[in-house]
Amino acid sequence: MIKELTLNLPSTVEFGAGKLTTLMNHLNGIKRVFFLIDAPVKDKVLPVIEELERQGIQILISTDVVPEPPIYALENLFAPVKEFAPECVVGIGGGSAIDLAKLVAVLFDGKQSVADVIGIGNVACRNVKLIAVSTTSGTGSEVTPIAVLTDTEMKLKKGVVSRYLVPDVAIIDPLLTLSLPAAVTAATGMDALTHCLEAYTNRNAHPIVDNLALEGIRLIAFNMEKCVTDGTDIEARTALALGSFYGGLCLGPVNTAAVHALAYPLGGEFKISHGVSNSVLLPFVMQFNLSKCIEKYAVVAKILGVEKESQENSAKAAIHRIREISDKCGIPGSLKDLGLKESDVETLSQGAIKVTRLLQNNPREITIDDARFIFSNAYKGIIER
Amino acid sequence: MIKELTLNLPSTVEFGAGKLTTLMNHLNGIKRVFFLIDAPVKDKVLPVIEELERQGIQILISTDVVPEPPIYALENLFAPVKEFAPECVVGIGGGSAIDLAKLVAVLFDGKQSVADVIGIGNVACRNVKLIAVSTTSGTGSEVTPIAVLTDTEMKLKKGVVSRYLVPDVAIIDPLLTLSLPAAVTAATGMDALTHCLEAYTNRNAHPIVDNLALEGIRLIAFNMEKCVTDGTDIEARTALALGSFYGGLCLGPVNTAAVHALAYPLGGEFKISHGVSNSVLLPFVMQFNLSKCIEKYAVVAKILGVEKESQENSAKAAIHRIREISDKCGIPGSLKDLGLKESDVETLSQGAIKVTRLLQNNPREITIDDARFIFSNAYKGIIER
Repeated sequence: MIKELTLNLPSTVEFGAGKLTTLMNHLNGIKRVFFLIDAPVKDKVLPVIEELERQGIQILISTDVVPEPPIYALENLFAPVKEFAPECVVGIGGGSAIDLAKLVAVLFDGKQSVADVIGIGNVACRNVKLIAVSTTSGTGSEVTPIAVLTDTEMKLKKGVVSRYLVPDVAIIDPLLTLSLPAAVTAATGMDALTHCLEAYTNRNAHPIVDNLALEGIRLIAFNMEKCVTDGTDIEARTALALGSFYGGLCLGPVNTAAVHALAYPLGGEFKISHGVSNSVLLPFVMQFNLSKCIEKYAVVAKILGVEKESQENSAKAAIHRIREISDKCGIPGSLKDLGLKESDVETLSQGAIKVTRLLQNNPREITIDDARFIFSNAYKGIIER
Repeated sequence: MIKELTLNLPSTVEFGAGKLTTLMNHLNGIKRVFFLIDAPVKDKVLPVIEELERQGIQILISTDVVPEPPIYALENLFAPVKEFAPECVVGIGGGSAIDLAKLVAVLFDGKQSVADVIGIGNVACRNVKLIAVSTTSGTGSEVTPIAVLTDTEMKLKKGVVSRYLVPDVAIIDPLLTLSLPAAVTAATGMDALTHCLEAYTNRNAHPIVDNLALEGIRLIAFNMEKCVTDGTDIEARTALALGSFYGGLCLGPVNTAAVHALAYPLGGEFKISHGVSNSVLLPFVMQFNLSKCIEKYAVVAKILGVEKESQENSAKAAIHRIREISDKCGIPGSLKDLGLKESDVETLSQGAIKVTRLLQNNPREITIDDARFIFSNAYKGIIER
């Protein structure tokens, strides 16, 4: 029996090379627009913004995007945006820029504080239009109801989940990803792959999402290396962008699981980027989950083209193939290689076990000892054969 | 290279058994709601509407839904709705009820006439919230930017296509389909199957839509007979509803082709229901398109479980299997069985050839002679082996 599901979606998704130029189609009747832009892409998008200005739209631009955005970086944006009083907020960039833009859109008027909205379903409303333009492939944030902040005092990442955070319009233009450095392409691509994999093997998996997740896995697995090797390969960039879009669509209705939970303290405490954190942990969490996921991993193996004669061997081959993709894209393979110490395993485990919102989605229950086991393996970086 | 695509989507899709009760979640702050309801489902949905009334929402209900809705049936609704001045319009029913509700929502204020909006992109705006609750599986209208009217004077069907016709909320609750008569289940199911097939083999096909279309074909093909045989099989009803939802998602970005074009005069001139028209024509249009679609039909054959050794034989097997599904569901197999005369072929061909909006999507060009050929075959009802 197919279970019930709620999908919260952007009203419009503009997908494909050159779609940035559709931005103005979505600003009919709007007079003041606040742009939050990742600094490295500002020059690329400026011509489109200048055209808006020529049409009489008032523009405020900020490039104050901090990676793995701390709460203070968000709060610093409220006063100038409130004074400007935009009718539309546009976030252009990777996950950090878009997450910040989403939260600015619902909080700049000061009626709710950041603390008020942490958690699920706590945002009261949104009174301005929200447009997200993704420039990585990616976090999928342009289509999700999620924004993640770093509590720098508690050294913890905190999620805000609300349907009001789903942008009205998502623009996914792979031309904007062409100049992404190889390392960012690799890290964000592995993040997207993790979204698909954790949704497909999720305790709350759903056929609607499975369909997107599996196609996302295929697109990402077969195109990420190409994009890392030749950043200007627009065909591969477009396929990767589509895979990332599918990964994003998985997050609202099903979401991620233990990989993301265990990645939280790596970002919050050790400033490891979200994509790299996920990438390093993914094969070790998959290995831990293997006993509960043999059939599903075997399906993934088939998609990845590494199917073996038995389901169990196929499942294991899937794990190794995913590790191989990460290796070939130049992502470090262990926590050791990321500069962590073996003694950090305890801190990481204590931090991860608090992320119950995501751990409860994992196909296999994870205790504090299990977390220690997974982090220890990830520290060494060696996967069982 | 994956082409660009614009997806216009409902902001929320509520899918699954019992989801009708989520209606009230989407009416926060709304004081007056106009309901247009297919009469046979009125009693089923009344408890939910009465609950809204108890919460102080003012309700106006009409059950003036005419199948294959004529323009006058739409225009008759404008005056009472304008007087009531709703903030939200809710259409509950099959395609006719939802199409009418969509057009009421954009036209009741009288700023545009029906003639103004016929065609693509002619609706100026929509100022009320629009919610669609589908009770068939189905037209997919609950998620599409399309509404179709019958011009009774010209004996022609006319389409209105606009992103303003995409409902804000689509509720797909298979419990509402349980009491559908077998004949309606069969006809609407074949309509949904046709949406998926014509999108997948479309001249403007797109991988995003292919993914939905193929999964839709699978779900519909393996569940329609079950639903026709036992209308209360909620598992099969849910799977069919999901297939129909996918079929609907195909319509906005890619849309249908020659089957729907040729079906238009069958509805407009001969009052044959939309689903039955499509069902009768589908195998004959597929046969006509065969030379252009061998690879894709072979993929469909694989999904349908009738793959043969050669691609061509697989493709042919797909056509026969689809005809078989229609037969087993009790749908007449020829225009003759529908009571038409051989001399009607000319009228039908003349009518169909005008539907260039859809004919241009067909994988093989269709001339007036080709239309005569297809209608003649459909009249006899015999598919080449």
